[in-house]
Amino acid sequence: MDDYERPLFFHLMEYAAEADGDVVDMVSGNPDWEPPEAIRTGLKRYADSGVDAFQYPPSDGLSDLRAAVADRHGVDVDRVVVTNGAGEANYLAMATALEAGPADGVLMADPVYPYYHKRARMLGGTPRFVPSEPDGTLDPAAVRRAASEDTAAIVVNSPNNPTGGVYGGETKRDIAAVADANDALLISDEVYERFVYDEGAFETALAADSDRVVVTNAFSKSMAITGFRVGYGIFPPRLAEAVRTRHMLVNVAGSRPAQRAVLDALEQTPESYYERNRKLLEERIETFCAALEAAGAAYTRPQGGFYVMARFEGYPGTLENTERLIDEAGVAGMPGDAFGESRAEWLRFAVVTPRAEEAAERLAAYFG
Amino acid sequence: MDDYERPLFFHLMEYAAEADGDVVDMVSGNPDWEPPEAIRTGLKRYADSGVDAFQYPPSDGLSDLRAAVADRHGVDVDRVVVTNGAGEANYLAMATALEAGPADGVLMADPVYPYYHKRARMLGGTPRFVPSEPDGTLDPAAVRRAASEDTAAIVVNSPNNPTGGVYGGETKRDIAAVADANDALLISDEVYERFVYDEGAFETALAADSDRVVVTNAFSKSMAITGFRVGYGIFPPRLAEAVRTRHMLVNVAGSRPAQRAVLDALEQTPESYYERNRKLLEERIETFCAALEAAGAAYTRPQGGFYVMARFEGYPGTLENTERLIDEAGVAGMPGDAFGESRAEWLRFAVVTPRAEEAAERLAAYFG
Repeated sequence: MDDYERPLFFHLMEYAAEADGDVVDMVSGNPDWEPPEAIRTGLKRYADSGVDAFQYPPSDGLSDLRAAVADRHGVDVDRVVVTNGAGEANYLAMATALEAGPADGVLMADPVYPYYHKRARMLGGTPRFVPSEPDGTLDPAAVRRAASEDTAAIVVNSPNNPTGGVYGGETKRDIAAVADANDALLISDEVYERFVYDEGAFETALAADSDRVVVTNAFSKSMAITGFRVGYGIFPPRLAEAVRTRHMLVNVAGSRPAQRAVLDALEQTPESYYERNRKLLEERIETFCAALEAAGAAYTRPQGGFYVMARFEGYPGTLENTERLIDEAGVAGMPGDAFGESRAEWLRFAVVTPRAEEAAERLAAYFG
Repeated sequence: MDDYERPLFFHLMEYAAEADGDVVDMVSGNPDWEPPEAIRTGLKRYADSGVDAFQYPPSDGLSDLRAAVADRHGVDVDRVVVTNGAGEANYLAMATALEAGPADGVLMADPVYPYYHKRARMLGGTPRFVPSEPDGTLDPAAVRRAASEDTAAIVVNSPNNPTGGVYGGETKRDIAAVADANDALLISDEVYERFVYDEGAFETALAADSDRVVVTNAFSKSMAITGFRVGYGIFPPRLAEAVRTRHMLVNVAGSRPAQRAVLDALEQTPESYYERNRKLLEERIETFCAALEAAGAAYTRPQGGFYVMARFEGYPGTLENTERLIDEAGVAGMPGDAFGESRAEWLRFAVVTPRAEEAAERLAAYFG
């Protein structure tokens, strides 16, 4: 196993906090808006429960929560396992794919969310990277060329972190066909699903209707509760039991106060809550991109998710340059090279701050 | 991996709930007493936090919670990783031991808490069982004879589930010496530590002062919150970083509402809370054992923990007999053969019900 690496974003958030001047923090993907009201009231209601309600929930999650998830996605409830965030769901899917046979290849995009390749390595897999298209999506033909009988899993993330690309339904179906042809598992991380800015661009991988597709998701971003750790996986029926066993032997069960609050929020939160936050982010992205445009920077306007990538002439996306930007411009982002080779010239900025416009003005002034 | 087995205790709790007559449920180890008041008030206080407090906690747990754990055990805080219950801590320790080298043997007692051997198998290990002594503890000489260079880990649990045995300090030090001599990891599950009835009988494995000892624990039983999933491991400094990496790649972080409530409860709960519950269980055990004595049954009076084992002449501890006891005597326990060969003649009864005396009278009437 790799040595423990203190996640880079912790380092940069600390670096920003300790900087001499004022810094706009655009490092992490932590939502800065209010959770649904029912998260707060749900926790309080739970706190007044009888002692029975404080004991083990079912290992695969509260029954009503699983039913609500199954209902929303139109799948059989037996396929749903509630997990400790989308992270555990991704772990369970990858572990299940890698133990299915001798194949150890795990295909993923470059740039990549760093947990994917580290997790693959921990599980004895071999990450293989497929360069993303300029628009931040994946070309199924490139995935097909990279796939082989040695491929155990293909991990995709749409809306994408860090590129902001959203894979259309055809792309997902074509990649699912590659998984089918190579007896591999397509693991589709859809955690930014509620944040799509091009209407109709997003389609879930469940639409591929293949028994080699796993969809993972969570309430972390959609309900602004990354610290609650409530996510889920939707697994093919043939894998659901093996996944349950692994989940039980690793975690026994998930945390019940958080599951209870999320269940209340699922039942009581109107669509307008999600729509309001989507619009808030869309406006921040507009503002931020307009300022980048004015500054003459290259940038990607995300189709979905929380992140804008920007490239400044002669200023590659290294850790050193990211720290310099904190000190000299008062804006904290993430170095593009933390996500792989293909975006090493870029910096990533998370629009989870009301000060996105101010940050863009600082960048314009610094590079202008 | 084994096929998923719906845990036996869920099956038996359901069987008991669906029985025609009234049944006293002594199946699971779910506490039936009140959690500390600060668990309820802590959850409510947390529910009123700003949105920042709803985002990711540090991966290895809230800093103040880790500090409180380190302080209580007198260890360096860097050795403490807060986990999703003691179950995840045991998983992390076992996985770390098994990936250290080619050795794949995992020694454990028979009878055994079933998660241990299933988890060992999932991780590619080979469980090897050492029969417990009649008093429910382990003889270090028997562990020494069973250990070899093929031993990766030795898993012990004291106070013990299911036997009620409490391993003394000398026993733990001697077993730690066996681990040292075989380059293996001693993994000591001390989750029933607050429930010891023979004063001075318990000593933590940390006393062995070896860099091959891991102690795992949780607040599940001591605070009557098995559903919160807040536990921890205390790891040797040389292993702490690898354990953090695995924890991060599996779970990202633990659930923050539960950690926050436990931290409040740690700070605000007087010793008298733990002492009161210990006495409550001790009284139930007395009553239950007295009735078993009157019924002429063999039984073990636990030195610690929640469980009394009983043996009735000509009535072995099979699932069939356990179900018959529910139907005909109105008492639900666990079959001894679920814990291994050495207690196949016995039944296990958890004293986590105020109706322990009534249950014992029913058993006396049924077998009398």
